[in-house]
Amino acid sequence: MLKNELFFERTPLSAISSYAKRMNDELKGGEIGYYHLPEIGANLLNEIAEYEATLAHIKSVVLVGIGGSSLGVKALKTMLSGTKRSRERELYFLDNVDAFSFESVCESIKFDETLFIISSKSGTTIETITLFKCILERFRPSNLSANFIVITDPASPLEAYAKQNGVKFFNIPKNVGGRFSVLSAIGLVPLMLCGYDAAALLEGARACKRRFLEDGDDTLLQKAYHYATHKNAKINVIFSYGDRFLEFNDWYVQLWAESLGKKKGYKRYGLTPVGLIGSRDQHSFLQLIMDGVKDKTVSFIKVVAADTNTAIPSISLNGLEGCDFVNGLNLGELINAQCSATMHALVQEGISVDVIELERLDEASAGFLIYYFELLTSATGIMLGINTYDQPGVEVGKRILKTMLTAGK
Amino acid sequence: MLKNELFFERTPLSAISSYAKRMNDELKGGEIGYYHLPEIGANLLNEIAEYEATLAHIKSVVLVGIGGSSLGVKALKTMLSGTKRSRERELYFLDNVDAFSFESVCESIKFDETLFIISSKSGTTIETITLFKCILERFRPSNLSANFIVITDPASPLEAYAKQNGVKFFNIPKNVGGRFSVLSAIGLVPLMLCGYDAAALLEGARACKRRFLEDGDDTLLQKAYHYATHKNAKINVIFSYGDRFLEFNDWYVQLWAESLGKKKGYKRYGLTPVGLIGSRDQHSFLQLIMDGVKDKTVSFIKVVAADTNTAIPSISLNGLEGCDFVNGLNLGELINAQCSATMHALVQEGISVDVIELERLDEASAGFLIYYFELLTSATGIMLGINTYDQPGVEVGKRILKTMLTAGK
Repeated sequence: MLKNELFFERTPLSAISSYAKRMNDELKGGEIGYYHLPEIGANLLNEIAEYEATLAHIKSVVLVGIGGSSLGVKALKTMLSGTKRSRERELYFLDNVDAFSFESVCESIKFDETLFIISSKSGTTIETITLFKCILERFRPSNLSANFIVITDPASPLEAYAKQNGVKFFNIPKNVGGRFSVLSAIGLVPLMLCGYDAAALLEGARACKRRFLEDGDDTLLQKAYHYATHKNAKINVIFSYGDRFLEFNDWYVQLWAESLGKKKGYKRYGLTPVGLIGSRDQHSFLQLIMDGVKDKTVSFIKVVAADTNTAIPSISLNGLEGCDFVNGLNLGELINAQCSATMHALVQEGISVDVIELERLDEASAGFLIYYFELLTSATGIMLGINTYDQPGVEVGKRILKTMLTAGK
Repeated sequence: MLKNELFFERTPLSAISSYAKRMNDELKGGEIGYYHLPEIGANLLNEIAEYEATLAHIKSVVLVGIGGSSLGVKALKTMLSGTKRSRERELYFLDNVDAFSFESVCESIKFDETLFIISSKSGTTIETITLFKCILERFRPSNLSANFIVITDPASPLEAYAKQNGVKFFNIPKNVGGRFSVLSAIGLVPLMLCGYDAAALLEGARACKRRFLEDGDDTLLQKAYHYATHKNAKINVIFSYGDRFLEFNDWYVQLWAESLGKKKGYKRYGLTPVGLIGSRDQHSFLQLIMDGVKDKTVSFIKVVAADTNTAIPSISLNGLEGCDFVNGLNLGELINAQCSATMHALVQEGISVDVIELERLDEASAGFLIYYFELLTSATGIMLGINTYDQPGVEVGKRILKTMLTAGK
């Protein structure tokens, strides 16, 4: 499903084996729930399928959620936009308190044929509850159960509200953090309702778990160690070749930034994620990587079986013969060649590079890729010695918002 | 149109006045063409209008271009998606050699009703010419002039090809770099053909030029100086509150990264851009800014007259009363309050912050904003003592690609 080649020096196994052990302890300790989602998620599929059988009237699904409640789902929807689905329901997102986006989505759907998923781990996310209220005001449903479901933590205020109103709800395990939750109900419910193969997604994640946690492939630990100990490169770029990775990049940015930007006592830690799309961003950010301060590592992501239908015709345009060297390739081969060429250029500059090759863009590969980056984040956090799973820094702004708006009343 | 407030200490004018002079020299020297686009662009509007009058059969426009040939146009299209246009032609983009995107766009249009704009400054951009060939192969037009135009440098190979084939072409001034070119034909032609008010766009840019280059407002120089001399903060975040800034952020990333990531002799310079969307990314990247290493500055962008139609209803949901403090606001007021709250949280952490307030999201404000960031880039480049306008680092990859693919034949 996925191959990962490192173009920087490996560390002797003796230096990293203690981290492998600590990761294994974390896995078995039970405090960090996401490790077990490939198995837990599988238990959920029947329940989702049963619920889905009651939705004959539903043509669109609107996921109302922000941050960890939507980024992973968006990533998978876009990555899988070329796959065959078992049903063609349209999936929309309301993931910002933006009036323009709210109107656009509302105008795109018919209320009676739409299922709104109100998705909030805490159950009290201000943006999500506010959007929920705006939806209620706009469509004035007489009965919530036909057009709304809820995904939230067990015993959250939103779960209680759902129970009171006869609304179907799904739970996220309490010990699964929002940004690590896409393989829980958070992702499985919307994706499965819209016809994606959730079982294959989980199978891909399980394959990743086997490879790096059970079969002892140390590639991932090597990479984490390189990132955690690199003296100068504190910016970790993923350079994804293909437009369908656009939202995957956003998911990665949240996962990496929110997990690895932390204070411990007075000391501040932080690795900064950047997501690029190739070959497009060869005409943008690449110059900075090549000639700028050497403060970046780069992970290339490519799809081996890139689409092969669009052949570049063997025609020659007068005066533009200099562009004929790509004739006869197809666009997939060209984009992968560009990935290789850029990779070699960076290696020549002495920049730390690795290449992740996906076999194809399907549910199994996507599940592997998601779980791969989650494990990489955990490993890097362990090596930095920080708490990978909290996000205390975002609370201050929330308090200021509340004070500001309450004082104004 | 635009207000900019700095929340960090200003530098005595004596320390920056020499840079103001050098910027003025650059403006008057004539080597850097983009400074003059607000005036030059205005001369083009008649020509575009005359050409537009021949396009009664055209319902869609596809811009084929990458990097500087499309990022600015995409930015403006999205920023202006809520404005009233004088005609409703759909604008599509082919800005990557991605087979999936290519198929999607081709399936969305009817060839006879479509105008393809082949846009390449050098005229030999491999991605653009390749996509052009794929379009020719797919639709096999008998005559190019009805469905194709070209935007390119004077006397480029693509201009010669256009002339030979009776294809209408527009030129970019040779001394205007790709990433600084959106106010030239590169942006004006597609935007005007699709009914955007190009005159207002240029008027906004002229207002910006007057304020910062003629009327002596030193805010922009202060900000550039802060960025160029900051010992630790080498990452410059823009935090744009509103979904319609998504592609503006991408445009900024190219402008900043490609202009300010440079070698001079053995020394490497580089300021790294990051683009965020608020309030969405308060649930993503914000944790890293708050608690991570203090290596970032943050520019907030907000729209004062944010949409005011979507009121948050004054309803209280059982158990969720903790979210009622935003009741009675509209979504625009909430998103702006979140911007202020986050800004104050960062100021409390001692992070360098400034706030850019646009009156509204229209052509004039967008033109001002575009020109503002172009001037900021020039000023910062002057202070770093680098060549802001070249991009030598991207050539290596191009050479490797050519060698790789030629050797394979």
